Amino acid sequence: MNGLVELGAAAKKAASVLATASEQQKNEALLKMAEALIVNSDEILEQNRADLENARQNGMPDHMIDRLALNLRRLEDMALGVRHVVSLKDPIGEVLSMTRRPNGLIIGKQRVPLGVIGMIYESRPNVTVDAASLCIKSGNAVILRGGKEAFLSNMALTRIIRRSLEDAGLPADCVIMVEDTSRETAVRLMQLTGYVDVLIPRGGAGLIRSVVENAKVPVIETGVGNCHVYVDSEADLDMAVEILFNAKCSRPSVCNAAETLLVAEPVAGEFLPRAKKRLDEKDVEWRGCEKAREILPGIAAATEEDYYTEYLDYILAVKVVRDAGDAIEHINRYGSGHSEAIVTTNYFTAQRFLREVDAACVYVNASTRFTDGFVFGFGAEIGISTQKMHARGPMGLNELTTIKYIVYGEGQVR
Amino acid sequence: MNGLVELGAAAKKAASVLATASEQQKNEALLKMAEALIVNSDEILEQNRADLENARQNGMPDHMIDRLALNLRRLEDMALGVRHVVSLKDPIGEVLSMTRRPNGLIIGKQRVPLGVIGMIYESRPNVTVDAASLCIKSGNAVILRGGKEAFLSNMALTRIIRRSLEDAGLPADCVIMVEDTSRETAVRLMQLTGYVDVLIPRGGAGLIRSVVENAKVPVIETGVGNCHVYVDSEADLDMAVEILFNAKCSRPSVCNAAETLLVAEPVAGEFLPRAKKRLDEKDVEWRGCEKAREILPGIAAATEEDYYTEYLDYILAVKVVRDAGDAIEHINRYGSGHSEAIVTTNYFTAQRFLREVDAACVYVNASTRFTDGFVFGFGAEIGISTQKMHARGPMGLNELTTIKYIVYGEGQVR
Repeated sequence: MNGLVELGAAAKKAASVLATASEQQKNEALLKMAEALIVNSDEILEQNRADLENARQNGMPDHMIDRLALNLRRLEDMALGVRHVVSLKDPIGEVLSMTRRPNGLIIGKQRVPLGVIGMIYESRPNVTVDAASLCIKSGNAVILRGGKEAFLSNMALTRIIRRSLEDAGLPADCVIMVEDTSRETAVRLMQLTGYVDVLIPRGGAGLIRSVVENAKVPVIETGVGNCHVYVDSEADLDMAVEILFNAKCSRPSVCNAAETLLVAEPVAGEFLPRAKKRLDEKDVEWRGCEKAREILPGIAAATEEDYYTEYLDYILAVKVVRDAGDAIEHINRYGSGHSEAIVTTNYFTAQRFLREVDAACVYVNASTRFTDGFVFGFGAEIGISTQKMHARGPMGLNELTTIKYIVYGEGQVR
Repeated sequence: MNGLVELGAAAKKAASVLATASEQQKNEALLKMAEALIVNSDEILEQNRADLENARQNGMPDHMIDRLALNLRRLEDMALGVRHVVSLKDPIGEVLSMTRRPNGLIIGKQRVPLGVIGMIYESRPNVTVDAASLCIKSGNAVILRGGKEAFLSNMALTRIIRRSLEDAGLPADCVIMVEDTSRETAVRLMQLTGYVDVLIPRGGAGLIRSVVENAKVPVIETGVGNCHVYVDSEADLDMAVEILFNAKCSRPSVCNAAETLLVAEPVAGEFLPRAKKRLDEKDVEWRGCEKAREILPGIAAATEEDYYTEYLDYILAVKVVRDAGDAIEHINRYGSGHSEAIVTTNYFTAQRFLREVDAACVYVNASTRFTDGFVFGFGAEIGISTQKMHARGPMGLNELTTIKYIVYGEGQVR
C-alpha cells in the first residue's frame, strides 16, 4: 500500500484535535457509536456473513469461525462495552503532581494522550470496536490493522465508527483501518516512525516475534502467557487441585491460562494422582519430567521445548522440583513474565515467591486466570503487557497515556 | 566481541540478586564507591592521562578534550554525586496502590527494578559513575558501553565500582563495561533481546538515529533538543529578551538550549533589534526567514533544514509567525518534543500553548534551560526522554523502575 505515510499523517493530524477534545465531546462520539452499532446491524452482519463465507471456503477451523462470527447479540454486547467506556473517568488532563521549586517555578506533571497508537491484531472483529473506543476515550488516534479473515466486518465497523466521530464534530481520521492486510504492510506499519507513537500488537507468539524483529516504533509486547502454577510442599492440596484445574481448564485458549505445573518433591506423590484425576474430567494431556512419570506412569515425556511452550490447549507440562527456590528459577527461565501462582500455607515461602518471581502478576493461593483489566478494576483492557517498559500487566485507559510537564514561570532564567 | 551474550547472561543473573537487595546494602556499595574514587584517584588519573594523550594525537578538539579530562576536583565531584544518590529515597518495593476486589483478592501495585539496563554513551567518563550509581540505587544491573576516547578511564572507573559492589556483598556483574568499543558491538548490544530490558542511549542525533534504526530491545530515546522560544504579540519584551538570551547563550551545547526563536509579527519590528543587540554580546549567528531579514538586514537566510537543526552552538534560527497558533504549528512540526517556551502576558494564549504544544516540558515565561532532573526536584538524572513511552522529560530514579502486581488470595478461582 502506497498510502501508509499518508494514513500516518492523517492520523497524526486527527490526534492533535482529539488530544484537546473535551470528555463531553469524546463521550458523545462513543454514545453515537454504540447507537450506530445497532442501527446499522444489518450492514455489519451482511459483511460478516461474507467474511464467514470466505473463511469456510478457505477451510477455517470451527473454533476460529466462532471467534469471527457476529450476530445481533454480539453487536449488543459491543455496544454495551462502548457505553461502559463512556462511564469510565477520562484520564486526560489530570495533574498527577504540582510542586513549587525553590526558584518559584511551578511544575505540574499532567496526563496527556500518547498520540497515535498502532494496533495489529487477528481475527476477532470485536477488537476493532474495543480498541477504537478505548483510544478515543483516552484521546488517542488509532491506526488499526486487523486480520484479513475479518476484513469486511472490520471495514463495516470502521465506517460506522468514523461516521460517529464526524457526527460528534471530531475528525473521522481518529480511527483509521489499513485496507491492505498483507504482511508487508504490517511490517511497514511497525516501521512508521514519526507517525506512530506506540505500537500494540495483539496476537500469537508469531506476531509478537515479528514485531520485536521488525518494529522501529516503540512497542508494547502483549499477550504471550507461559504461566505456571507451583504447588509447594506446604500447600493445601485440595486448594491446589482446584487452582490448577481452574488455571488450566476454565479457558485454555487465553493468555492467563496455566501451561506448566511445578510441584515440590515431598508432596508430588500425593498431589499428582489427585490433580490428574481432576484434570481427566477435561481430558487434559500431560507431559512430564522423569520423576512425574514415575508417579504417573501413563503420561508422555516433556521435552525442554515443552517448558517454553504456550499450548493454549488442554495440554499440561509438569515438573517435579525440589523446593520453592527451584520453582522460582524454573519460572524466571522459562516463563514469559505474564502470570505466576504459588499455592502454599507458608508465610515466608509466599513472601519469597512474590519478591523473586519476575512477572507482571504474581499470585499467592489464587488462579492465574484473574489477570485481566476488568478483574483488576481498571474498567477496561486493551491488552496485557508482558514487557517492563511503560506498562506491565493488564492495560487500561491510564496505560494509554503519557505525561507532559507544564511549567509556570514569571521570567525565571537559569 | 564474542562474549556479549555471556555478558548479558552475567548481568541478568546479577540483576536478580540486586533486585531484592536491601536499601542498606545498596547504599553500602555506593558509599564504598564514593570512597574508592578518591582512594584510587592516582590509578584513575593515570588511565585518564593515557586517554587524553591518545585523544590529542588523534586531533580531538579542545572543547572535547575538556569533557574527557579528569582531575582530583572532578573525582571529588563524582564522589559527592554518588553520596547524594545515597541520600535519595530507594524507590524499590513501594506499593503504589493496594485494593481489595469484590472476590476478596487483594491486588497491590509494587515498584520493582526494570532488570538490566543498557547504556550507550559518548566521551564523558563521569557518565560511567552517574549511570552506575543510579542503576545500583534503583536495583538495576547495567551494561555500559562508553566511547572509545574514554576507554581507559572508563575501565579504571568500572574496576573500582565492581570492587565496591563486591566489598558490599553484591555481585560485581551488576555493573559491566563492554570492552569492545566498535559500532558493530554497539549494534549487537541494541539487539540483545532476552538480556537487556531497556536501552538508554545518551549522545547526539547520530547515535539516537542508529538506535531507532537498529534496536530490537525496548529503547528510551533521550537528549535531542530542538527547542523553541516563542515571543507572543502580548509579551513583556524585556522579559522575552532575557529568556531568549538565557535559553540560547547560557550553555548552547546542552539539549535544553533554544535553537529557534519564533516571534509574533506585531512585535517583531520592535523585538528583533533588541534581541539581536543582546545576543551580539555572545556573537550569536542569526539565520532568519524573509520577514526577519527585512527587520535585521545583515543576517543570513534560514533554510528549511535550519528549522530542523539542533545547532548546539551560538547559532539561532529565527522566524516571524502570525500568532500563537502558527507558532504551535511550527513547534509541533519541527521540534523534537523536548522543551518549548512561550513569553506572553495573555492568560488564554498561555493556557493554549501549554495545552497544544506536544513536548516533554512546556514553559510559560521561563527559560527552556530548566529541563533537568535536579531542577525538577528528582535529585538525579539519567537522561531526558524525548519519547512518550515509559518516561518523558527528565528521568530520575522512579523512571528506572517498572511495576509488578502482587496478588494475595485465599483459594480464589475464576
